[in-house]
Amino acid sequence: MDMQALLDDIAEAVAPKLGEGRVADYIPGLGRVDAEQFGIAVAMADGGVYGSGDWRRPFSIQSISKVFSLALVLSSGGVRIWQRVFREPSGTPFNSLVQLEHENGIPRNPFINAGALVVTDQLQTMTGDAGGAVRDFLRRESENPTIGVNQTVADSEAAHGHRNSAMAHMLASYDNLDNPVETVLEHYFSHCAMEMSCQDLALAGRFLSRNGVGASGRQLLTPSQNKRINAVMLTCGTYDAAGEFAYRVGLPGKSGVGGGIIAVVPGRCTICVWSPALSLSGNSLAGVAALDEFTTRTGWSVF
Amino acid sequence: MDMQALLDDIAEAVAPKLGEGRVADYIPGLGRVDAEQFGIAVAMADGGVYGSGDWRRPFSIQSISKVFSLALVLSSGGVRIWQRVFREPSGTPFNSLVQLEHENGIPRNPFINAGALVVTDQLQTMTGDAGGAVRDFLRRESENPTIGVNQTVADSEAAHGHRNSAMAHMLASYDNLDNPVETVLEHYFSHCAMEMSCQDLALAGRFLSRNGVGASGRQLLTPSQNKRINAVMLTCGTYDAAGEFAYRVGLPGKSGVGGGIIAVVPGRCTICVWSPALSLSGNSLAGVAALDEFTTRTGWSVF
Amino acid sequence: MDMQALLDDIAEAVAPKLGEGRVADYIPGLGRVDAEQFGIAVAMADGGVYGSGDWRRPFSIQSISKVFSLALVLSSGGVRIWQRVFREPSGTPFNSLVQLEHENGIPRNPFINAGALVVTDQLQTMTGDAGGAVRDFLRRESENPTIGVNQTVADSEAAHGHRNSAMAHMLASYDNLDNPVETVLEHYFSHCAMEMSCQDLALAGRFLSRNGVGASGRQLLTPSQNKRINAVMLTCGTYDAAGEFAYRVGLPGKSGVGGGIIAVVPGRCTICVWSPALSLSGNSLAGVAALDEFTTRTGWSVF
Amino acid sequence: MDMQALLDDIAEAVAPKLGEGRVADYIPGLGRVDAEQFGIAVAMADGGVYGSGDWRRPFSIQSISKVFSLALVLSSGGVRIWQRVFREPSGTPFNSLVQLEHENGIPRNPFINAGALVVTDQLQTMTGDAGGAVRDFLRRESENPTIGVNQTVADSEAAHGHRNSAMAHMLASYDNLDNPVETVLEHYFSHCAMEMSCQDLALAGRFLSRNGVGASGRQLLTPSQNKRINAVMLTCGTYDAAGEFAYRVGLPGKSGVGGGIIAVVPGRCTICVWSPALSLSGNSLAGVAALDEFTTRTGWSVF
Repeated sequence: MDMQALLDDIAEAVAPKLGEGRVADYIPGLGRVDAEQFGIAVAMADGGVYGSGDWRRPFSIQSISKVFSLALVLSSGGVRIWQRVFREPSGTPFNSLVQLEHENGIPRNPFINAGALVVTDQLQTMTGDAGGAVRDFLRRESENPTIGVNQTVADSEAAHGHRNSAMAHMLASYDNLDNPVETVLEHYFSHCAMEMSCQDLALAGRFLSRNGVGASGRQLLTPSQNKRINAVMLTCGTYDAAGEFAYRVGLPGKSGVGGGIIAVVPGRCTICVWSPALSLSGNSLAGVAALDEFTTRTGWSVF
Repeated sequence: MDMQALLDDIAEAVAPKLGEGRVADYIPGLGRVDAEQFGIAVAMADGGVYGSGDWRRPFSIQSISKVFSLALVLSSGGVRIWQRVFREPSGTPFNSLVQLEHENGIPRNPFINAGALVVTDQLQTMTGDAGGAVRDFLRRESENPTIGVNQTVADSEAAHGHRNSAMAHMLASYDNLDNPVETVLEHYFSHCAMEMSCQDLALAGRFLSRNGVGASGRQLLTPSQNKRINAVMLTCGTYDAAGEFAYRVGLPGKSGVGGGIIAVVPGRCTICVWSPALSLSGNSLAGVAALDEFTTRTGWSVF
Repeated sequence: MDMQALLDDIAEAVAPKLGEGRVADYIPGLGRVDAEQFGIAVAMADGGVYGSGDWRRPFSIQSISKVFSLALVLSSGGVRIWQRVFREPSGTPFNSLVQLEHENGIPRNPFINAGALVVTDQLQTMTGDAGGAVRDFLRRESENPTIGVNQTVADSEAAHGHRNSAMAHMLASYDNLDNPVETVLEHYFSHCAMEMSCQDLALAGRFLSRNGVGASGRQLLTPSQNKRINAVMLTCGTYDAAGEFAYRVGLPGKSGVGGGIIAVVPGRCTICVWSPALSLSGNSLAGVAALDEFTTRTGWSVF
Repeated sequence: MDMQALLDDIAEAVAPKLGEGRVADYIPGLGRVDAEQFGIAVAMADGGVYGSGDWRRPFSIQSISKVFSLALVLSSGGVRIWQRVFREPSGTPFNSLVQLEHENGIPRNPFINAGALVVTDQLQTMTGDAGGAVRDFLRRESENPTIGVNQTVADSEAAHGHRNSAMAHMLASYDNLDNPVETVLEHYFSHCAMEMSCQDLALAGRFLSRNGVGASGRQLLTPSQNKRINAVMLTCGTYDAAGEFAYRVGLPGKSGVGGGIIAVVPGRCTICVWSPALSLSGNSLAGVAALDEFTTRTGWSVF
């Protein structure tokens, strides 16, 4: 397979869709981005990275960071996390407080905001600096030491983050936060506001496609832990469109409102696509189309 | 791999769990079964069937029939079904009317009862005999012409099926049934009350592990349709424990309250386990444990 | 106070509103009525009836019948009813199945459809003919022996009543119906399809304004029972607009989708207004306006 | 009627119930109170106060303050409040976030916590010191200049008030707060932490029983505004037991978790009862029993 030609083809195929959908603009920092950008990168499990379009341009990774904070917690032996968060699809919009209230403060899964706040809290307890731990992990795995937080975006999230504050206070009211609400929110907003390119993210997530083996050849996660993160991504990684994503794309994936999506072909590669305009379900419209095309053309699907 | 030895090992490994959990007893016909039975069968994609324990003893397939009615509708070109039912996880107990009411009569997915009623309705419109169509399909694919409905169970479901009747009337109130409520319920209860063994079900579902190619070598579903059914099974196949099942077992699967579960290893095999006692989530307790053991031992997982 | 002049004034005052809103048309029988009709009648507690507009023209009483079936059950010693139905406002649209499911088959109050089905069921058990019992009660209290059921409307409700059928099956699934679903629905549709005029209803409900004393001077309900029915009317009588009705009108009241509303001024009178076009909350738009005017002009309010 | 003898009788009648139920202990300040206390006071509309038991002992008024903050907003022309809060019963526990989310940040009524936060916010905008405005109003109407806030309780609420913080952030996320979240919470906790006796509260709420005329003879509210506050109290004043309270007691009432309840007999008197132990619905158990006895014995009910 000529991967480079394939990615160029896909970039061309989705070009007519660019700009459809809507760029997230709930905070000023995110809304200012050009909607018609598109990038795709593929990091092969056995080495080699391919890319097309704006594949080296950094963007706000947002919820994609949730995969890495979860991986860090699990790799450090934090199995207690599964007493604090379920791993079931939520069935409702990603920022819903309803389920939290119905289920006594235990979030549905680690990829909805409430669940990611709990993961961040545990990482904070384990490391004393959850935001820094995620940043260092991402730098190491992507082998890019320049990756960092866009502080304007982080501050903007904090200033407009009433919904996340409400969620954190709800978790605290159920005794499901160990650290102060403000600390957890600060570190959460920090790792969501990291800026990375498709290349960076494909490399950073490459361990997911090779049974947990990281950039340095070190086993970051056991094969079993690694499979389980992929399972959670497949069932819960794309907000309340996880069923649709599994149906169309057929790969574990995690999206962010910045327009990025990473997806994993176990044993083969990790893919990252990016295009800022989102569908109603909050996932990159052109990004999902590109992944659909990718799996159709390669036949690579977990099913 | 010595498949026979593996299945015998698994049967032994789960033996201590038999009888834990609770046999479904909402209708007399189901409750009378001996809780400590266990069977497992594996139909290899390239031929050959293996089994251990009570693998040839028929049981009530219940919701497992929903996979086959969906496959029949899709294989007959019934794509309109996706305008009548979503394919998202439900996030709530399998018989919930709440989501139906919140979402204007469109069931969350084809594997919750409301969704399966809609699928049965469409199959009825397409064939004039939905129950018979499912039965004939199962006989053909399992190559067992003696498979049939346990009419006592079917009648008992009808007599005690107020919840399903409520659901069917709700669908009708949203104009999401083409046939009379009574007709749809009759055919639905009929295909749920089929009795089959683990061997029968592993063979009947073998096409799911070989890109849609059926017993006779005929392409029942396109590879793409087949992958998509597997995707729906993985995200929605085990009631509101689909996330947990993906996490522990890592395979597309569909369970029934009779205690059976089928699971698919794409490209390799279809598995059927059976043990009547259920966990709180409504899935066979020993059955899930056996599948967990199977994927741990073989390393076969879609992730 | 010149009651006749007051009623004529009110009829004139609401005239500009006639036709605003929307006539219920979920069944053919109801939709065919002229939207611009209006009637008001007042039956004084100490005798005398006044009326204006179309006050002697019969209309479909619909949910107003729920007051009388409840009164009949309570007057016959059926206090067990309060173990089968709560008396709290529902907080959601009147035909919601959600609360029924969340609260184990106990309807929120006797005036939502689910609750009225339970009341009808109990009346059926007590009398053997719930529909006939309500009809006889209404004839006796209004002293109008010609009152009867519009069978076309009753049949039409049955034919289009999937939502009510769903509700009845749900109640049965929670063992909260003693009689067969079909029997309960038939008698429920029957008493809802009674046709009465404003005069008939004001007279039939006069006992509510005089501590339970009926047309013949007989004590139908104890004063305490009577007050309690008024309390349930005030908190639950106008679907999910009960708070708004209490705020604007300040009287116990019960509305029906046929456009009628009865309201009670304890110790003084029972009022019935009618105009077919409904507001979004399902209450007669001109009817509520007329009652608002009535309480403003008379100063008669329970507060 | 010998009111003094009646109140003494009631105090005696409820004595066996004292200590049943459970004292609110979600904050240390509230939990420390002796459960077996009971007081009752009646302020006659035409002058005169009667009391029995611990009727002059101050307690934490908690949610009863919501009546006075609402009255203050309405008396100052703040009708805009009805665009920011509904006046329908909530149908769910008093601190629920669910309805807030389903209904776009408009609380169900001014007496649930979310609604009272909005009222406090508006009063803050109108006066610059919402807590002080409520305090001054209560001092003036009760003619007791020593009434004040228990700052330990107020601080304790703030320290443990994650649920209220979550609610305030939710309101802010829907742009339904004008002032900073922290300011609104501080003033809200302040007026809830006022300490008053049954006598103080009966006097402070006397205007509700005399068409809005306050202690000095000044018209605090128009008769129409006054009736409407009573209507909201009747439909929404006792959490999700408003229907039950209307049924048993038959008066507009407002309770607090400190164990106090005020109730209004329009044209006659305002009553305040207090006993710290609460029923499951969050209302004073002995307090409701005392009011039930009071209305049974006097025959005073709005129905």
